Amino acid sequence: MCSQTLFVGTKDRFQGITVDSTKEPCEILAFPDILKVFFFNVGSLNKWREDKVRGVWFKVALADSGWVPHLAQNGFRYHHAQASYVMMVAWLPENEVCNIPQYASTMVGVGAIVMNDKRQILVVSEKYRLFPHWKLPGGYVEPGEEIVNAAEREVLEETSVRAKFKQMICFRHVHNFTFGCSDMYFIVALTPEPGQEVLKKCDREIDAVEWMNVEEYLNHPNVHSTNRFFVSKFLEYEASGISLTYHEDTHQILKKSYLVYSLDLGQHKKMDSPNDTISQSNKQ
Amino acid sequence: MCSQTLFVGTKDRFQGITVDSTKEPCEILAFPDILKVFFFNVGSLNKWREDKVRGVWFKVALADSGWVPHLAQNGFRYHHAQASYVMMVAWLPENEVCNIPQYASTMVGVGAIVMNDKRQILVVSEKYRLFPHWKLPGGYVEPGEEIVNAAEREVLEETSVRAKFKQMICFRHVHNFTFGCSDMYFIVALTPEPGQEVLKKCDREIDAVEWMNVEEYLNHPNVHSTNRFFVSKFLEYEASGISLTYHEDTHQILKKSYLVYSLDLGQHKKMDSPNDTISQSNKQ
Repeated sequence: MCSQTLFVGTKDRFQGITVDSTKEPCEILAFPDILKVFFFNVGSLNKWREDKVRGVWFKVALADSGWVPHLAQNGFRYHHAQASYVMMVAWLPENEVCNIPQYASTMVGVGAIVMNDKRQILVVSEKYRLFPHWKLPGGYVEPGEEIVNAAEREVLEETSVRAKFKQMICFRHVHNFTFGCSDMYFIVALTPEPGQEVLKKCDREIDAVEWMNVEEYLNHPNVHSTNRFFVSKFLEYEASGISLTYHEDTHQILKKSYLVYSLDLGQHKKMDSPNDTISQSNKQ
Repeated sequence: MCSQTLFVGTKDRFQGITVDSTKEPCEILAFPDILKVFFFNVGSLNKWREDKVRGVWFKVALADSGWVPHLAQNGFRYHHAQASYVMMVAWLPENEVCNIPQYASTMVGVGAIVMNDKRQILVVSEKYRLFPHWKLPGGYVEPGEEIVNAAEREVLEETSVRAKFKQMICFRHVHNFTFGCSDMYFIVALTPEPGQEVLKKCDREIDAVEWMNVEEYLNHPNVHSTNRFFVSKFLEYEASGISLTYHEDTHQILKKSYLVYSLDLGQHKKMDSPNDTISQSNKQ
Protein backbone atom coordinates (compact mmCIF):
# COMPACT_ATOMS: atom_id res chain seq x y z
CA MET A 1 0.00 0.00 0.00
CA CYS A 2 1.20 3.47 -0.92
CA SER A 3 4.64 2.34 -1.96
CA GLN A 4 4.42 4.79 -4.83
CA THR A 5 5.35 8.42 -4.41
CA LEU A 6 3.08 9.58 -7.23
CA PHE A 7 0.00 8.23 -8.95
CA VAL A 8 0.77 6.76 -12.36
CA GLY A 9 -2.61 6.19 -14.06
CA THR A 10 -3.34 5.23 -17.65
CA LYS A 11 -2.91 7.66 -20.54
CA ASP A 12 -5.55 8.20 -23.25
CA ARG A 13 -5.35 9.66 -26.76
CA PHE A 14 -6.72 13.03 -25.60
CA GLN A 15 -3.65 13.65 -23.35
CA GLY A 16 -5.67 12.57 -20.34
CA ILE A 17 -4.78 10.36 -17.36
CA THR A 18 -7.08 7.96 -15.47
CA VAL A 19 -6.24 6.70 -11.97
CA ASP A 20 -8.22 3.66 -10.80
CA SER A 21 -8.36 3.35 -7.00
CA THR A 22 -8.47 -0.44 -7.22
CA LYS A 23 -5.23 -0.53 -9.24
CA GLU A 24 -3.25 2.03 -7.23
CA PRO A 25 -4.39 1.50 -3.64
CA CYS A 26 -3.40 4.17 -1.14
CA GLU A 27 -4.08 4.65 2.55
CA ILE A 28 -6.40 7.53 3.13
CA LEU A 29 -3.94 9.42 5.36
CA ALA A 30 -1.30 9.43 2.63
CA PHE A 31 -3.73 10.35 -0.15
CA PRO A 32 -3.58 14.18 0.06
CA ASP A 33 0.24 14.16 0.00
CA ILE A 34 0.49 11.89 -3.01
CA LEU A 35 -2.07 14.03 -4.79
CA LYS A 36 -0.50 17.38 -3.99
CA VAL A 37 2.99 17.15 -2.43
CA PHE A 38 5.16 14.27 -1.30
CA PHE A 39 7.69 15.38 1.33
CA PHE A 40 9.60 18.06 -0.47
CA ASN A 41 8.82 16.67 -3.91
CA VAL A 42 6.12 17.80 -6.23
CA GLY A 43 2.83 15.82 -5.99
CA SER A 44 0.91 14.05 -8.76
CA LEU A 45 -1.18 17.05 -9.76
CA ASN A 46 1.81 19.35 -10.27
CA LYS A 47 3.69 16.65 -12.13
CA TRP A 48 0.74 16.26 -14.49
CA ARG A 49 0.57 20.02 -15.00
CA GLU A 50 4.25 20.03 -15.95
CA ASP A 51 3.61 17.14 -18.37
CA LYS A 52 0.78 19.11 -20.08
CA VAL A 53 -1.84 16.54 -19.10
CA ARG A 54 -5.37 17.81 -19.93
CA GLY A 55 -8.17 15.86 -18.21
CA VAL A 56 -7.30 13.99 -14.98
CA TRP A 57 -9.78 11.25 -14.06
CA PHE A 58 -10.10 9.39 -10.76
CA LYS A 59 -12.24 6.26 -10.79
CA VAL A 60 -12.93 5.84 -7.08
CA ALA A 61 -14.36 2.50 -5.90
CA LEU A 62 -17.06 2.54 -3.22
CA ALA A 63 -14.57 1.04 -0.73
CA ASP A 64 -12.16 3.95 -1.38
CA SER A 65 -14.79 6.68 -1.05
CA GLY A 66 -12.56 8.43 1.53
CA TRP A 67 -10.68 9.81 -1.51
CA VAL A 68 -13.77 11.71 -2.69
CA PRO A 69 -13.68 14.67 -0.25
CA HIS A 70 -9.95 15.20 -0.89
CA LEU A 71 -10.50 15.24 -4.65
CA ALA A 72 -13.44 17.64 -4.27
CA GLN A 73 -11.20 19.98 -2.23
CA ASN A 74 -8.59 19.94 -4.99
CA GLY A 75 -10.65 21.09 -7.94
CA PHE A 76 -12.20 17.80 -9.00
CA ARG A 77 -15.91 17.55 -9.83
CA TYR A 78 -18.11 14.53 -10.43
CA HIS A 79 -18.49 13.22 -13.97
CA HIS A 80 -20.63 10.10 -13.52
CA ALA A 81 -21.17 7.18 -11.16
CA GLN A 82 -22.27 3.58 -11.30
CA ALA A 83 -23.19 1.37 -8.34
CA SER A 84 -19.59 0.50 -7.44
CA TYR A 85 -17.61 3.62 -8.34
CA VAL A 86 -17.73 7.37 -8.86
CA MET A 87 -15.69 9.00 -11.65
CA MET A 88 -14.27 12.43 -10.78
CA VAL A 89 -12.47 14.72 -13.18
CA ALA A 90 -10.35 17.88 -13.22
CA TRP A 91 -9.42 19.83 -16.33
CA LEU A 92 -5.85 21.12 -15.95
CA PRO A 93 -5.17 23.44 -18.96
CA GLU A 94 -5.78 27.02 -17.96
CA ASN A 95 -5.88 28.42 -21.48
CA GLU A 96 -8.11 25.83 -23.12
CA VAL A 97 -11.86 25.37 -22.76
CA CYS A 98 -12.81 22.01 -21.20
CA ASN A 99 -14.15 19.84 -24.01
CA ILE A 100 -14.99 16.71 -22.02
CA PRO A 101 -18.38 15.36 -23.18
CA GLN A 102 -21.17 14.99 -20.66
CA TYR A 103 -22.11 11.50 -19.57
CA ALA A 104 -25.21 9.71 -20.89
CA SER A 105 -28.50 11.38 -20.00
CA THR A 106 -30.96 9.31 -22.02
CA MET A 107 -32.88 6.27 -20.79
CA VAL A 108 -34.19 3.87 -23.44
CA GLY A 109 -37.38 1.85 -23.16
CA VAL A 110 -39.39 -0.36 -25.44
CA GLY A 111 -43.07 -1.21 -25.95
CA ALA A 112 -44.24 -4.16 -28.05
CA ILE A 113 -47.20 -4.58 -30.40
CA VAL A 114 -47.74 -8.35 -30.60
CA MET A 115 -50.61 -9.25 -32.95
CA ASN A 116 -51.70 -12.85 -33.54
CA ASP A 117 -53.46 -14.23 -36.62
CA LYS A 118 -56.87 -13.47 -35.07
CA ARG A 119 -55.98 -9.76 -35.12
CA GLN A 120 -55.74 -9.71 -31.33
CA ILE A 121 -52.94 -7.77 -29.63
CA LEU A 122 -51.27 -8.51 -26.34
CA VAL A 123 -52.11 -5.91 -23.68
CA VAL A 124 -51.24 -5.57 -20.00
CA SER A 125 -52.39 -3.62 -17.00
CA GLU A 126 -49.60 -2.70 -14.56
CA LYS A 127 -49.60 -3.32 -10.84
CA TYR A 128 -48.02 0.02 -9.84
CA ARG A 129 -49.81 2.52 -12.07
CA LEU A 130 -51.07 6.06 -11.65
CA PHE A 131 -54.35 5.30 -13.44
CA PRO A 132 -55.76 2.00 -14.74
CA HIS A 133 -55.20 1.55 -18.46
CA TRP A 134 -54.39 -1.14 -21.00
CA LYS A 135 -50.84 -0.64 -22.16
CA LEU A 136 -48.37 -2.44 -24.38
CA PRO A 137 -46.01 -4.90 -22.67
CA GLY A 138 -42.48 -3.52 -22.36
CA GLY A 139 -39.90 -1.90 -20.11
CA TYR A 140 -36.37 -0.52 -20.01
CA VAL A 141 -33.70 -1.69 -22.42
CA GLU A 142 -30.81 -3.05 -20.33
CA PRO A 143 -27.31 -1.57 -20.71
CA GLY A 144 -25.72 -3.13 -23.82
CA GLU A 145 -28.96 -4.80 -24.92
CA GLU A 146 -30.43 -4.42 -28.43
CA ILE A 147 -33.88 -2.77 -28.59
CA VAL A 148 -35.18 -5.78 -30.52
CA ASN A 149 -34.02 -8.27 -27.88
CA ALA A 150 -35.37 -6.11 -25.06
CA ALA A 151 -38.83 -6.16 -26.68
CA GLU A 152 -38.79 -9.96 -27.01
CA ARG A 153 -37.49 -10.36 -23.42
CA GLU A 154 -40.03 -8.02 -21.85
CA VAL A 155 -42.95 -9.68 -23.66
CA LEU A 156 -41.78 -13.10 -22.49
CA GLU A 157 -41.24 -11.91 -18.88
CA GLU A 158 -44.50 -10.03 -18.55
CA THR A 159 -46.87 -12.31 -20.48
CA SER A 160 -45.03 -15.64 -21.11
CA VAL A 161 -45.51 -15.16 -24.88
CA ARG A 162 -42.60 -16.03 -27.18
CA ALA A 163 -42.51 -13.58 -30.08
CA LYS A 164 -39.99 -12.47 -32.72
CA PHE A 165 -39.08 -9.04 -34.08
CA LYS A 166 -41.10 -8.00 -37.12
CA GLN A 167 -40.42 -4.29 -37.51
CA MET A 168 -39.97 -1.04 -35.63
CA ILE A 169 -42.94 1.34 -35.70
CA CYS A 170 -41.95 4.64 -34.12
CA PHE A 171 -40.48 6.26 -31.02
CA ARG A 172 -41.40 8.87 -28.47
CA HIS A 173 -38.78 11.32 -27.16
CA VAL A 174 -39.48 13.12 -23.88
CA HIS A 175 -37.25 15.23 -21.63
CA ASN A 176 -36.85 15.76 -17.89
CA PHE A 177 -38.34 12.37 -17.09
CA THR A 178 -37.14 9.70 -14.60
CA PHE A 179 -34.08 10.97 -12.64
CA GLY A 180 -34.34 14.17 -14.73
CA CYS A 181 -33.13 12.21 -17.79
CA SER A 182 -34.47 12.24 -21.33
CA ASP A 183 -36.38 9.14 -22.33
CA MET A 184 -36.74 7.38 -25.67
CA TYR A 185 -39.56 4.84 -25.93
CA PHE A 186 -39.38 2.66 -29.05
CA ILE A 187 -42.44 0.80 -30.31
CA VAL A 188 -41.61 -2.52 -31.94
CA ALA A 189 -43.96 -4.99 -33.67
CA LEU A 190 -43.39 -8.67 -32.83
CA THR A 191 -44.90 -11.82 -34.31
CA PRO A 192 -45.97 -14.39 -31.69
CA GLU A 193 -45.08 -18.04 -32.14
CA PRO A 194 -48.31 -19.95 -32.90
CA GLY A 195 -50.40 -21.68 -30.23
CA GLN A 196 -49.95 -19.34 -27.28
CA GLU A 197 -53.57 -18.68 -26.31
CA VAL A 198 -53.01 -19.24 -22.59
CA LEU A 199 -51.23 -16.35 -20.90
CA LYS A 200 -49.24 -16.41 -17.66
CA LYS A 201 -48.53 -12.95 -16.28
CA CYS A 202 -45.57 -11.76 -14.21
CA ASP A 203 -47.17 -11.36 -10.76
CA ARG A 204 -44.53 -8.96 -9.47
CA GLU A 205 -45.22 -6.25 -12.09
CA ILE A 206 -48.43 -7.08 -13.94
CA ASP A 207 -52.01 -6.99 -12.71
CA ALA A 208 -53.72 -8.39 -15.83
CA VAL A 209 -52.82 -9.56 -19.31
CA GLU A 210 -55.02 -10.48 -22.25
CA TRP A 211 -55.34 -10.86 -26.01
CA MET A 212 -57.59 -7.99 -27.09
CA ASN A 213 -59.14 -7.52 -30.49
CA VAL A 214 -57.19 -4.72 -32.18
CA GLU A 215 -60.35 -2.77 -33.10
CA GLU A 216 -61.53 -3.00 -29.48
CA TYR A 217 -58.16 -1.64 -28.32
CA LEU A 218 -58.40 1.33 -30.70
CA ASN A 219 -61.77 2.27 -29.21
CA HIS A 220 -61.29 1.25 -25.57
CA PRO A 221 -61.92 4.05 -23.02
CA ASN A 222 -58.98 2.89 -20.87
CA VAL A 223 -56.36 3.23 -23.59
CA HIS A 224 -54.18 6.34 -23.81
CA SER A 225 -54.38 8.27 -27.06
CA THR A 226 -50.65 7.86 -27.73
CA ASN A 227 -50.97 4.08 -27.47
CA ARG A 228 -53.88 4.22 -29.92
CA PHE A 229 -51.65 6.24 -32.24
CA PHE A 230 -48.90 3.59 -32.01
CA VAL A 231 -51.29 0.76 -32.85
CA SER A 232 -52.97 2.63 -35.71
CA LYS A 233 -49.54 3.44 -37.19
CA PHE A 234 -48.68 -0.25 -36.95
CA LEU A 235 -51.81 -1.17 -38.94
CA GLU A 236 -50.97 1.52 -41.49
CA TYR A 237 -47.42 0.14 -41.98
CA GLU A 238 -48.73 -3.42 -42.25
CA ALA A 239 -51.13 -2.40 -45.00
CA SER A 240 -48.46 -0.48 -46.92
CA GLY A 241 -45.81 -3.21 -47.12
CA ILE A 242 -43.13 -0.73 -45.99
CA SER A 243 -41.14 -1.58 -42.90
CA LEU A 244 -38.70 0.11 -40.55
CA THR A 245 -36.13 -2.55 -39.86
CA TYR A 246 -32.40 -3.01 -39.19
CA HIS A 247 -29.25 -4.64 -40.48
CA GLU A 248 -25.93 -5.30 -38.82
CA ASP A 249 -22.92 -3.33 -39.98
CA THR A 250 -19.30 -2.91 -38.87
CA HIS A 251 -17.37 0.30 -38.30
CA GLN A 252 -14.66 0.38 -40.96
CA ILE A 253 -11.92 1.72 -38.70
CA LEU A 254 -12.92 0.59 -35.20
CA LYS A 255 -14.03 -2.89 -36.43
CA LYS A 256 -16.97 -2.57 -34.06
CA SER A 257 -20.32 -4.01 -35.06
CA TYR A 258 -23.60 -2.19 -34.64
CA LEU A 259 -27.20 -2.13 -35.86
CA VAL A 260 -28.51 0.44 -38.33
CA TYR A 261 -32.28 0.98 -38.33
CA SER A 262 -33.73 2.30 -41.58
CA LEU A 263 -36.69 1.95 -43.94
CA ASP A 264 -37.06 -1.02 -46.22
CA LEU A 265 -39.17 0.53 -48.94
CA GLY A 266 -39.80 -2.82 -50.63
CA GLN A 267 -41.96 -2.46 -53.72
CA HIS A 268 -42.28 1.27 -53.13
CA LYS A 269 -38.66 1.90 -54.03
CA LYS A 270 -38.82 3.93 -57.21
CA MET A 271 -35.15 4.41 -57.82
CA ASP A 272 -32.86 2.03 -59.67
CA SER A 273 -29.58 3.85 -59.59
CA PRO A 274 -25.95 3.10 -58.65
CA ASN A 275 -26.89 3.94 -55.07
CA ASP A 276 -28.76 0.70 -54.69
CA THR A 277 -25.61 -1.19 -55.46
CA ILE A 278 -23.67 0.86 -52.95
CA SER A 279 -26.29 0.38 -50.30
CA GLN A 280 -26.17 -3.38 -50.82
CA SER A 281 -22.40 -3.56 -50.67
CA ASN A 282 -22.45 -1.90 -47.25
CA LYS A 283 -24.51 -4.66 -45.78
CA GLN A 284 -21.65 -7.11 -45.69
CA MET B 1 -26.55 23.80 11.15
CA CYS B 2 -27.52 20.42 12.49
CA SER B 3 -30.35 21.71 14.59
CA GLN B 4 -32.32 18.66 13.49
CA THR B 5 -32.00 15.37 15.29
CA LEU B 6 -32.99 13.32 12.27
CA PHE B 7 -32.95 13.85 8.53
CA VAL B 8 -36.39 14.60 7.12
CA GLY B 9 -36.09 14.32 3.33
CA THR B 10 -38.82 14.34 0.69
CA LYS B 11 -41.15 11.39 0.15
CA ASP B 12 -41.93 9.91 -3.26
CA ARG B 13 -44.79 7.72 -4.53
CA PHE B 14 -42.65 4.57 -4.32
CA GLN B 15 -42.33 4.87 -0.51
CA GLY B 16 -38.87 6.34 -0.93
CA ILE B 17 -37.14 9.28 0.79
CA THR B 18 -34.64 11.74 -0.72
CA VAL B 19 -32.34 13.85 1.46
CA ASP B 20 -30.68 16.81 -0.30
CA SER B 21 -27.46 17.95 1.41
CA THR B 22 -28.07 21.55 0.35
CA LYS B 23 -31.51 21.58 2.01
CA GLU B 24 -30.56 19.82 5.25
CA PRO B 25 -27.03 21.00 5.97
CA CYS B 26 -25.13 19.13 8.66
CA GLU B 27 -21.62 19.41 10.07
CA ILE B 28 -19.53 16.47 9.07
CA LEU B 29 -18.74 15.46 12.68
CA ALA B 30 -22.44 15.17 13.52
CA PHE B 31 -23.34 13.34 10.30
CA PRO B 32 -22.76 9.70 11.42
CA ASP B 33 -24.85 10.20 14.56
CA ILE B 34 -27.79 11.73 12.74
CA LEU B 35 -27.64 8.94 10.20
CA LYS B 36 -27.39 6.07 12.68
CA VAL B 37 -27.99 7.10 16.30
CA PHE B 38 -28.58 10.40 18.03
CA PHE B 39 -27.56 10.23 21.72
CA PHE B 40 -29.77 7.48 23.04
CA ASN B 41 -32.39 7.94 20.34
CA VAL B 42 -32.74 5.98 17.17
CA GLY B 43 -31.04 7.55 14.09
CA SER B 44 -32.56 8.38 10.71
CA LEU B 45 -31.89 4.98 9.13
CA ASN B 46 -33.61 3.02 11.91
CA LYS B 47 -36.52 5.45 11.92
CA TRP B 48 -36.97 4.92 8.18
CA ARG B 49 -36.82 1.14 8.64
CA GLU B 50 -39.60 1.39 11.25
CA ASP B 51 -41.62 3.53 8.83
CA LYS B 52 -41.28 0.88 6.07
CA VAL B 53 -39.40 3.27 3.79
CA ARG B 54 -38.03 1.43 0.72
CA GLY B 55 -35.34 3.34 -1.19
CA VAL B 56 -33.36 6.00 0.72
CA TRP B 57 -31.60 8.55 -1.51
CA PHE B 58 -28.91 11.05 -0.54
CA LYS B 59 -28.19 13.80 -3.06
CA VAL B 60 -24.76 14.97 -1.88
CA ALA B 61 -23.44 18.27 -3.23
CA LEU B 62 -19.74 18.50 -4.13
CA ALA B 63 -19.18 20.83 -1.15
CA ASP B 64 -20.65 18.18 1.20
CA SER B 65 -18.62 15.28 -0.21
CA GLY B 66 -17.44 14.46 3.33
CA TRP B 67 -20.82 12.69 3.71
CA VAL B 68 -19.91 10.20 0.97
CA PRO B 69 -17.53 7.89 2.94
CA HIS B 70 -20.00 7.70 5.84
CA LEU B 71 -22.85 6.74 3.51
CA ALA B 72 -20.64 4.15 1.80
CA GLN B 73 -19.85 2.63 5.21
CA ASN B 74 -23.56 2.36 5.99
CA GLY B 75 -24.76 0.33 3.04
CA PHE B 76 -25.24 3.09 0.48
CA ARG B 77 -23.97 2.67 -3.08
CA TYR B 78 -23.69 5.16 -5.90
CA HIS B 79 -26.61 5.57 -8.30
CA HIS B 80 -25.48 8.43 -10.55
CA ALA B 81 -23.59 11.70 -10.50
CA GLN B 82 -23.57 15.00 -12.30
CA ALA B 83 -20.88 17.70 -12.09
CA SER B 84 -22.17 19.20 -8.84
CA TYR B 85 -23.60 16.24 -6.93
CA VAL B 86 -23.50 12.48 -6.43
CA MET B 87 -26.70 10.52 -5.76
CA MET B 88 -26.30 7.59 -3.36
CA VAL B 89 -28.99 5.05 -2.53
CA ALA B 90 -29.73 2.26 -0.07
CA TRP B 91 -32.58 -0.23 -0.38
CA LEU B 92 -34.03 -0.92 3.06
CA PRO B 93 -36.61 -3.77 2.66
CA GLU B 94 -34.96 -7.08 3.46
CA ASN B 95 -37.68 -9.25 1.92
CA GLU B 96 -38.18 -7.40 -1.34
CA VAL B 97 -35.92 -7.33 -4.39
CA CYS B 98 -34.56 -3.85 -5.16
CA ASN B 99 -36.47 -2.56 -8.19
CA ILE B 100 -34.75 0.81 -8.61
CA PRO B 101 -34.08 1.44 -12.32
CA GLN B 102 -30.53 2.01 -13.47
CA TYR B 103 -29.55 5.52 -14.50
CA ALA B 104 -29.24 6.57 -18.16
CA SER B 105 -26.52 4.75 -20.10
CA THR B 106 -27.18 5.98 -23.64
CA MET B 107 -25.52 8.94 -25.33
CA VAL B 108 -27.37 10.48 -28.28
CA GLY B 109 -25.70 12.09 -31.29
CA VAL B 110 -26.85 13.44 -34.61
CA GLY B 111 -25.44 13.68 -38.14
CA ALA B 112 -26.97 15.88 -40.83
CA ILE B 113 -27.43 15.37 -44.57
CA VAL B 114 -27.80 18.89 -45.98
CA MET B 115 -28.36 18.84 -49.76
CA ASN B 116 -28.75 22.04 -51.79
CA ASP B 117 -30.60 22.43 -55.11
CA LYS B 118 -27.39 21.61 -57.04
CA ARG B 119 -27.43 18.14 -55.46
CA GLN B 120 -24.37 18.98 -53.38
CA ILE B 121 -24.17 17.86 -49.76
CA LEU B 122 -22.37 19.56 -46.88
CA VAL B 123 -19.35 17.53 -45.69
CA VAL B 124 -16.69 18.17 -43.08
CA SER B 125 -13.31 16.81 -42.12
CA GLU B 126 -12.62 16.84 -38.37
CA LYS B 127 -9.57 18.29 -36.67
CA TYR B 128 -9.13 15.50 -34.11
CA ARG B 129 -9.75 12.35 -36.12
CA LEU B 130 -8.26 8.86 -36.16
CA PHE B 131 -8.14 8.76 -39.98
CA PRO B 132 -8.92 11.48 -42.55
CA HIS B 133 -12.40 11.13 -44.03
CA TRP B 134 -15.29 13.26 -45.21
CA LYS B 135 -18.08 12.96 -42.67
CA LEU B 136 -21.48 14.53 -42.10
CA PRO B 137 -21.60 17.59 -39.84
CA GLY B 138 -23.03 16.78 -36.40
CA GLY B 139 -22.31 16.09 -32.75
CA TYR B 140 -23.89 15.22 -29.42
CA VAL B 141 -27.48 16.15 -28.63
CA GLU B 142 -27.43 18.31 -25.49
CA PRO B 143 -29.41 17.24 -22.41
CA GLY B 144 -33.05 18.23 -22.96
CA GLU B 145 -32.49 19.18 -26.60
CA GLU B 146 -34.59 17.83 -29.50
CA ILE B 147 -32.70 15.75 -32.09
CA VAL B 148 -34.03 18.05 -34.81
CA ASN B 149 -32.74 21.19 -33.11
CA ALA B 150 -29.39 19.57 -32.36
CA ALA B 151 -28.92 18.81 -36.07
CA GLU B 152 -29.71 22.41 -37.05
CA ARG B 153 -27.45 23.79 -34.30
CA GLU B 154 -24.46 21.56 -35.12
CA VAL B 155 -24.65 22.37 -38.84
CA LEU B 156 -24.72 26.09 -38.08
CA GLU B 157 -21.83 25.84 -35.57
CA GLU B 158 -19.58 23.68 -37.71
CA THR B 159 -20.27 25.13 -41.17
CA SER B 160 -22.19 28.43 -40.70
CA VAL B 161 -25.04 27.04 -42.85
CA ARG B 162 -28.60 27.74 -41.74
CA ALA B 163 -30.78 24.72 -42.54
CA LYS B 164 -34.19 23.38 -41.47
CA PHE B 165 -35.38 19.87 -40.61
CA LYS B 166 -36.74 17.93 -43.55
CA GLN B 167 -36.94 14.34 -42.32
CA MET B 168 -35.18 11.69 -40.28
CA ILE B 169 -33.37 8.99 -42.26
CA CYS B 170 -32.13 6.30 -39.89
CA PHE B 171 -30.10 5.65 -36.76
CA ARG B 172 -27.14 3.57 -35.67
CA HIS B 173 -27.11 1.85 -32.27
CA VAL B 174 -23.75 0.77 -30.83
CA HIS B 175 -22.76 -0.46 -27.37
CA ASN B 176 -19.78 -0.07 -25.05
CA PHE B 177 -18.76 3.20 -26.67
CA THR B 178 -17.65 6.49 -25.04
CA PHE B 179 -17.45 6.09 -21.21
CA GLY B 180 -18.67 2.49 -21.76
CA CYS B 181 -22.12 3.84 -22.69
CA SER B 182 -24.38 2.84 -25.56
CA ASP B 183 -24.60 5.36 -28.38
CA MET B 184 -27.44 6.27 -30.73
CA TYR B 185 -26.50 8.28 -33.79
CA PHE B 186 -29.48 9.70 -35.68
CA ILE B 187 -29.17 10.81 -39.31
CA VAL B 188 -31.40 13.75 -40.17
CA ALA B 189 -31.94 15.43 -43.55
CA LEU B 190 -32.00 19.24 -43.50
CA THR B 191 -32.85 21.75 -46.23
CA PRO B 192 -30.42 24.68 -46.42
CA GLU B 193 -31.73 28.22 -46.73
CA PRO B 194 -30.92 29.47 -50.24
CA GLY B 195 -27.78 31.47 -51.10
CA GLN B 196 -25.24 29.95 -48.73
CA GLU B 197 -22.44 29.08 -51.13
CA VAL B 198 -19.67 30.53 -48.97
CA LEU B 199 -18.83 28.36 -45.98
CA LYS B 200 -17.16 29.39 -42.73
CA LYS B 201 -15.93 26.48 -40.65
CA CYS B 202 -15.60 26.19 -36.88
CA ASP B 203 -11.80 26.39 -36.43
CA ARG B 204 -11.83 24.69 -33.02
CA GLU B 205 -13.31 21.40 -34.28
CA ILE B 206 -13.27 21.38 -38.08
CA ASP B 207 -10.34 21.11 -40.46
CA ALA B 208 -12.24 21.52 -43.75
CA VAL B 209 -15.80 21.97 -44.96
CA GLU B 210 -17.22 21.91 -48.49
CA TRP B 211 -20.25 21.38 -50.69
CA MET B 212 -19.61 18.06 -52.46
CA ASN B 213 -21.58 16.61 -55.33
CA VAL B 214 -23.68 13.79 -53.88
CA GLU B 215 -22.53 11.29 -56.54
CA GLU B 216 -18.90 12.19 -55.81
CA TYR B 217 -19.53 11.59 -52.09
CA LEU B 218 -21.02 8.15 -52.79
CA ASN B 219 -17.88 7.13 -54.67
CA HIS B 220 -15.20 9.01 -52.71
CA PRO B 221 -12.38 6.81 -51.32
CA ASN B 222 -12.25 8.81 -48.06
CA VAL B 223 -15.87 8.21 -47.13
CA HIS B 224 -16.80 5.44 -44.70
CA SER B 225 -19.18 2.80 -46.02
CA THR B 226 -21.77 3.53 -43.30
CA ASN B 227 -21.86 7.19 -44.32
CA ARG B 228 -22.37 6.11 -47.93
CA PHE B 229 -25.24 3.92 -46.75
CA PHE B 230 -26.84 6.89 -44.92
CA VAL B 231 -26.66 9.11 -48.00
CA SER B 232 -27.91 6.43 -50.39
CA LYS B 233 -30.87 5.77 -48.05
CA PHE B 234 -31.60 9.50 -48.06
CA LEU B 235 -31.73 9.52 -51.87
CA GLU B 236 -33.98 6.45 -51.81
CA TYR B 237 -36.44 8.12 -49.38
CA GLU B 238 -36.43 11.31 -51.44
CA ALA B 239 -37.34 9.38 -54.58
CA SER B 240 -40.10 7.43 -52.82
CA GLY B 241 -42.04 10.35 -51.33
CA ILE B 242 -42.17 8.58 -47.96
CA SER B 243 -40.74 10.37 -44.96
CA LEU B 244 -39.82 9.60 -41.37
CA THR B 245 -40.96 12.66 -39.49
CA TYR B 246 -42.41 13.74 -36.13
CA HIS B 247 -45.36 15.41 -34.50
CA GLU B 248 -45.83 16.87 -31.05
CA ASP B 249 -48.13 15.08 -28.64
CA THR B 250 -49.06 15.39 -24.96
CA HIS B 251 -49.19 12.68 -22.32
CA GLN B 252 -52.85 12.36 -21.33
CA ILE B 253 -52.19 11.93 -17.60
CA LEU B 254 -48.88 13.69 -16.97
CA LYS B 255 -49.77 16.60 -19.31
CA LYS B 256 -46.20 16.49 -20.54
CA SER B 257 -45.46 17.20 -24.19
CA TYR B 258 -43.14 15.12 -26.31
CA LEU B 259 -42.25 14.34 -29.91
CA VAL B 260 -43.31 11.12 -31.64
CA TYR B 261 -41.25 10.10 -34.68
CA SER B 262 -43.05 7.90 -37.22
CA LEU B 263 -43.49 7.32 -40.93
CA ASP B 264 -45.60 9.61 -43.04
CA LEU B 265 -46.57 7.20 -45.81
CA GLY B 266 -48.06 9.94 -47.94
CA GLN B 267 -49.51 8.60 -51.20
CA HIS B 268 -48.34 5.08 -50.30
CA LYS B 269 -50.90 4.76 -47.56
CA LYS B 270 -53.22 2.01 -48.76
CA MET B 271 -55.60 1.90 -45.86
CA ASP B 272 -58.65 4.09 -45.34
CA SER B 273 -60.10 2.81 -42.11
CA PRO B 274 -61.32 4.28 -38.80
CA ASN B 275 -57.71 4.13 -37.61
CA ASP B 276 -56.79 7.08 -39.75
CA THR B 277 -59.33 9.17 -37.95
CA ILE B 278 -57.98 8.04 -34.61
CA SER B 279 -54.45 8.75 -35.66
CA GLN B 280 -55.44 12.28 -36.67
CA SER B 281 -57.32 12.99 -33.48
CA ASN B 282 -54.23 12.16 -31.46
CA LYS B 283 -52.23 14.85 -33.14
CA GLN B 284 -54.00 17.64 -31.29
